[in-house]
Amino acid sequence: MTHPPLGSYLSSVRDTTPLVHCITNFVAMNSTANLLLATGASPAMLHAQQEVAEFTAMAGALSINIGTLSPHWVDAMLIAARTAHERGTPWVLDPVAVGATDYRRQVCADLLTYQPSVIRANASEVLALHGLAHAGRGVDSTAATDDALDAAMALAGQHRCIVAMTGEQDIVTDGHQRYLINGGHPLMPRVTTLGCGLSALLAAFVAANQDDALRASSAAVTCFAMAGRHAGEIAAGPGSFYVAFLDALYQLTPDALSHFAQREMTHAA
Amino acid sequence: MTHPPLGSYLSSVRDTTPLVHCITNFVAMNSTANLLLATGASPAMLHAQQEVAEFTAMAGALSINIGTLSPHWVDAMLIAARTAHERGTPWVLDPVAVGATDYRRQVCADLLTYQPSVIRANASEVLALHGLAHAGRGVDSTAATDDALDAAMALAGQHRCIVAMTGEQDIVTDGHQRYLINGGHPLMPRVTTLGCGLSALLAAFVAANQDDALRASSAAVTCFAMAGRHAGEIAAGPGSFYVAFLDALYQLTPDALSHFAQREMTHAA
Amino acid sequence: MTHPPLGSYLSSVRDTTPLVHCITNFVAMNSTANLLLATGASPAMLHAQQEVAEFTAMAGALSINIGTLSPHWVDAMLIAARTAHERGTPWVLDPVAVGATDYRRQVCADLLTYQPSVIRANASEVLALHGLAHAGRGVDSTAATDDALDAAMALAGQHRCIVAMTGEQDIVTDGHQRYLINGGHPLMPRVTTLGCGLSALLAAFVAANQDDALRASSAAVTCFAMAGRHAGEIAAGPGSFYVAFLDALYQLTPDALSHFAQREMTHAA
Repeated sequence: MTHPPLGSYLSSVRDTTPLVHCITNFVAMNSTANLLLATGASPAMLHAQQEVAEFTAMAGALSINIGTLSPHWVDAMLIAARTAHERGTPWVLDPVAVGATDYRRQVCADLLTYQPSVIRANASEVLALHGLAHAGRGVDSTAATDDALDAAMALAGQHRCIVAMTGEQDIVTDGHQRYLINGGHPLMPRVTTLGCGLSALLAAFVAANQDDALRASSAAVTCFAMAGRHAGEIAAGPGSFYVAFLDALYQLTPDALSHFAQREMTHAA
Repeated sequence: MTHPPLGSYLSSVRDTTPLVHCITNFVAMNSTANLLLATGASPAMLHAQQEVAEFTAMAGALSINIGTLSPHWVDAMLIAARTAHERGTPWVLDPVAVGATDYRRQVCADLLTYQPSVIRANASEVLALHGLAHAGRGVDSTAATDDALDAAMALAGQHRCIVAMTGEQDIVTDGHQRYLINGGHPLMPRVTTLGCGLSALLAAFVAANQDDALRASSAAVTCFAMAGRHAGEIAAGPGSFYVAFLDALYQLTPDALSHFAQREMTHAA
Repeated sequence: MTHPPLGSYLSSVRDTTPLVHCITNFVAMNSTANLLLATGASPAMLHAQQEVAEFTAMAGALSINIGTLSPHWVDAMLIAARTAHERGTPWVLDPVAVGATDYRRQVCADLLTYQPSVIRANASEVLALHGLAHAGRGVDSTAATDDALDAAMALAGQHRCIVAMTGEQDIVTDGHQRYLINGGHPLMPRVTTLGCGLSALLAAFVAANQDDALRASSAAVTCFAMAGRHAGEIAAGPGSFYVAFLDALYQLTPDALSHFAQREMTHAA
């Protein structure tokens, strides 16, 4: 099967400007909105139980991030996720620090019943999420990369979703195929909530490309990898990195994304 | 009647550093504080029902933005707006996405009973707010600019307040006179919550110039139009635009503002 | 007694990357996380009563800032402070605008019963906090610097903690010794929540240097003074200042910090 070049998934986002309903943490709200706007999507942040179902129903996609939880917010997340699930609206789960507390584990278990389209997480979070269904296996923070890759593929298969596992090398899998993406820069983990923003961008890409969520997710991840590399070339530290990263997402062309993917993305079935 | 040059309204802000009590959305909090500080006002964000009336009573102005609502916040907004109304403290309403949900429409209808000094909104929000009192008329998202202008003037007349309607061209009206302001830059809508920050800046300008809220509001809007044009000349994207925009507000002189207004602001009675 | 050079306290932070549990205000969340990451510590923001004790117990330090209070948040702050107190985990109190409302005074009085390791405040806040225990004495916003210094030393003695009082000149005292630190830049108060970020950085420095909280606190304050001076040399306004400030914290070396302290820090017993 021949796929369109990766840049075409970015073109779809810019052509349709998907409205992404974000229920995210307080640290990430501003940067998530800016990352979506820079790339070409339209953010909306709201979380009142009085309006959340009404709004999710008109959004192109939903992005839920559990970074700063509290009970009213959890209620809103569950209403929104259920609404998305019932309507077939794509939604992304970002299970921040799911392994850190019982509360987070329980909230993620509840959210997973509404079948996210994509889970975006780092290796520790993937292992912790996978561990929710495999209680016998402890989450080892020194887990080898191979273990995390196995867990990512198992998690994708178990929930019939895409798993985008970000780190030094990013991995996007549907449980069968996987894309490995190089890029980014060591300054990225020194800037807060870039990963949270990527989760919302994944929602935008899947909304604009619903017939191929796996490649659409790979395209979103590759945008970040490419913008990160460009920003790293001119940044003097995390402050100038963030500024350059937003500028790079804005300037990124579909052709440049396709070429970057040809060099830096590999596919394994 | 001869008015002082527009820059004098900026001088008044810098001379008196008005304390602006902001009850705003989570996305806008940081940038709103920074936009006020850069221009020369003093921000304070707080929203607990336990302290909100006590604090509004000592502030120079109040700015309420409904971007991310929830019931406790709405209660605080109503207490603060009532306090401002009773004491004659200027206050600004920013009805973010008021047309999107029933909850927002109801909250805005309740807040409007306390007679804001200024409403800052985009064309869709102006039409939706005006529609609250004209239920028979649907809100048409493809409404022509003329309809929005008519609605802005009717809204100002109905609530005896200033309406600052921002867009490609900005309009400031008290229902009789209107100022039309050119400037800004296409990157402005690609940076989140600049409009929310303008609402708080309007509160600062009206607090420092209470004898002429209409011209004070025009001056605040012109600051943004001018800083936006300057920032756009040097920005490579939305990241560097925001940085340059804050710097431009800080560097903006009253004389330069007056000269910009002579070229870019027109008045119609 | 001979102390290690001040830069060694920064080295300890970078070597151990202390996890700082922050319960802070909505305005400061993003910048606090970025300031910690830029310097070399690891931030975590969470506040649900369901998980706060569990998380504080695994953090290296706790930082509590009362900028945007509400009852559920206050409950979480008290649980976290009590947990830190019981476990001997260092914790920092930032009593934002404590003198402004009764609610703030009461919350600070309650938090102080759990004996913070460090209080970080400006002169007005130090005077207000000290006044909590000296009801007969009004808080005078025109208080002379000498009064604030006396209050800082008395406050430190009363609560057996470090007081870091920031302003044009910064003062760090344990009630007996005091360090006076020059540096910074007039643009610093034009950027929101830098002081809030310093409170969290103090938590990181004390966590990484528990055998000498006084010198560790002086080192944290000196990092900000030095980064502020560097950023001020290249900034065109508050937008570029913040970017340069983050970059400067990232680039700051232990040796450079030690040399800066030799010139700009004085000690008095």
